[in-house]
Amino acid sequence: MTPTDDERLARAALTHIVEPGDEHAGRAVRRHGATTFLQLLKEPDDDAALFPAPRTSPKDGDRRAPTRAPETPPGIGERRLANWRRRARTATPERDLDHVARLGGRFLVPGDPAWPRQLDDLGDARPLGLWCRGPADLRGWALRSVAVVGARACTPYGAHTAATLAAGLAERGWVVVSGAAFGIDGAAHRGALAGGGATIAVLACGVDGAYPPGHAALINRIAEQGLLIGELPPGAHPTRSRFILRNRVIAALTRGTVVVEAEHRSGSLVTARAAARLGRHTMGVPGPVTSGLSAGVHELLRGEATLVTDAAEIVELVGAIGQLAPPRRGPVLPRDLLAPDTARVLEALPGRGPAPLADIAARAGTHPDHTLAKLYELHSLGFVERQQDDWRLTNRRTEPSNARHGGT
Amino acid sequence: MTPTDDERLARAALTHIVEPGDEHAGRAVRRHGATTFLQLLKEPDDDAALFPAPRTSPKDGDRRAPTRAPETPPGIGERRLANWRRRARTATPERDLDHVARLGGRFLVPGDPAWPRQLDDLGDARPLGLWCRGPADLRGWALRSVAVVGARACTPYGAHTAATLAAGLAERGWVVVSGAAFGIDGAAHRGALAGGGATIAVLACGVDGAYPPGHAALINRIAEQGLLIGELPPGAHPTRSRFILRNRVIAALTRGTVVVEAEHRSGSLVTARAAARLGRHTMGVPGPVTSGLSAGVHELLRGEATLVTDAAEIVELVGAIGQLAPPRRGPVLPRDLLAPDTARVLEALPGRGPAPLADIAARAGTHPDHTLAKLYELHSLGFVERQQDDWRLTNRRTEPSNARHGGT
Repeated sequence: MTPTDDERLARAALTHIVEPGDEHAGRAVRRHGATTFLQLLKEPDDDAALFPAPRTSPKDGDRRAPTRAPETPPGIGERRLANWRRRARTATPERDLDHVARLGGRFLVPGDPAWPRQLDDLGDARPLGLWCRGPADLRGWALRSVAVVGARACTPYGAHTAATLAAGLAERGWVVVSGAAFGIDGAAHRGALAGGGATIAVLACGVDGAYPPGHAALINRIAEQGLLIGELPPGAHPTRSRFILRNRVIAALTRGTVVVEAEHRSGSLVTARAAARLGRHTMGVPGPVTSGLSAGVHELLRGEATLVTDAAEIVELVGAIGQLAPPRRGPVLPRDLLAPDTARVLEALPGRGPAPLADIAARAGTHPDHTLAKLYELHSLGFVERQQDDWRLTNRRTEPSNARHGGT
Repeated sequence: MTPTDDERLARAALTHIVEPGDEHAGRAVRRHGATTFLQLLKEPDDDAALFPAPRTSPKDGDRRAPTRAPETPPGIGERRLANWRRRARTATPERDLDHVARLGGRFLVPGDPAWPRQLDDLGDARPLGLWCRGPADLRGWALRSVAVVGARACTPYGAHTAATLAAGLAERGWVVVSGAAFGIDGAAHRGALAGGGATIAVLACGVDGAYPPGHAALINRIAEQGLLIGELPPGAHPTRSRFILRNRVIAALTRGTVVVEAEHRSGSLVTARAAARLGRHTMGVPGPVTSGLSAGVHELLRGEATLVTDAAEIVELVGAIGQLAPPRRGPVLPRDLLAPDTARVLEALPGRGPAPLADIAARAGTHPDHTLAKLYELHSLGFVERQQDDWRLTNRRTEPSNARHGGT
């Protein structure tokens, strides 16, 4: 079902009103639809309509049974509801949508062709929508993505390893997802970009902002060559809980999460465990047992995670695609159903042999960043493959490259 | 069945005649007994008696059926048999036994009370006997032992880690087994000794020798405070194949093998895989993925091995004793069946509270090294426990401490 403009507008407003991952809000949206839920939040006294009280049949003699129906359903809390109502009055979804559109961005909601359906695994904690900046198709990229996360205060060993893994993943046509933080996250994004590869930063603030400010240049580069995405509307600031809830999106979006360095009780372990709970691959890169920054990873490796030491081992694991993308028997899309700009890039590839990005971009008449984004989409769809720094048509046009990694 | 003097003498001779782990020899000893096997080797022309040809019923028309009985059984080879016969003429078992006895050593054979019965798991590759030097009871020590092995050309990180693990194991009353080589082996022995703990070196040469020569002082120290053992008779030199075959004894003797640093295709991986095949715990200590010396360990950790980062994690694993020593319901031995010198050390412990080694040795009137050996035996038997650097009687005298680690 294609989302309506009203639905998109209501969801854009809701990203301003409710905090990411709020399952009460998710349930209410599922029950009422986003538009009605938003409307009910704007009618301050109608708690009963918003959260219909479950029918009660109080037992005689049970002195703890309430004598009146509760004003808010259990677990939601009056304060949270008051917050929602207060914020509902200040939401400016039209302005937010305009603002992000002027930055070359958009607001994706469930039902959009570019919506990554694997986020449905989050249930009522699924994002209400995703604010995006960057030239690529989120769904296509996310189907072939791996999260590389870890400590902010990483060691040179950790930074080197994250960058090397990310470059290796990019070289193999995989998209590197991380959180744009200092340390491992930044090294992973940079490694992917340096390898001419694709990377997605999942932010805990608005996609018009740059947090941490020290990574403003990196984040802008990702918006040009990769994708910036986030649940929060433009102008929103990160908070501790927003960082933590952001991690579930990283875990759900990707085929697997690799932790490079992490102390005990670190946020990266939260991401890794969320990935495991969601049935994604959980991986860890070991380090010296004398390093506290590897202690959290080792803890993970003694439990649910698989030890990996290079990009080939990661791809070996996540390439067995499993439920996210079952083995395909034919092309995902016929050529003539491709969007015009994607089809133009596909037409720009030579009939035989590889070509460098610059040549393809010149023949397609598109900016190299945009061309690269389309090439990664075409890669996900099985039309093209990377060969060192060049791109070529896949040999077996009726059997996309994904099928070779098909689950067994 | 207690071994006879003839049996012991024949087995001592056979350690000079056949190479360690030779399954053909093991089968022949099982069939004939060591004494008869040795006798047959000294009668050069009686191959048929040595290896009776299996009864053959040649099929009519099978042109490949031999027309005469083979002179040597398949797989043994005439050269090996000729070698055995040649060496049988030069064996000097009485002199070897005397020589090792003068060094304070002995030659253990299956059936001896101190014979470690877990070596039976090696089947026909079980050692024919073990030459030993040192004050301790091999069986008691081996029941509570862990192998710590790894690369000769280790890094400072590897050496530090091996020494720390070994000291931690010793502190917890566990015996550290290794191969006395440079690098990880030496660090493990030294770590155990420095912690006032017990250690066993399994040599690939005679226990009167010291290989590598640069470890002569360490090896002598182990002979005084720990145990030197090996399959080869005094005077025997190590060879490449003897090193490799020595590893199966390390694997079989211990409850588990920890690999600290190892390159791909290293001998330590042979030991670890032998341990896994024998149902022992296989463990690895991770390191930087950028280090070739950790690559072999990581390979192991991606397969059968458990990642460990400290002594507590090792003990947690091997302490679940399993088949080697099922949970005990009462003391292993009544006090009055202890050997007199062991009983004397037990009597020297205070009735309540801990005492330092030096005090116990003084009260027992025995050398501290000898006292320590006896304390580890008493530990295996559940009579005493270590408390930091001191020793004390276990609180629950009717339930030895091993029972607390009983398999579940």
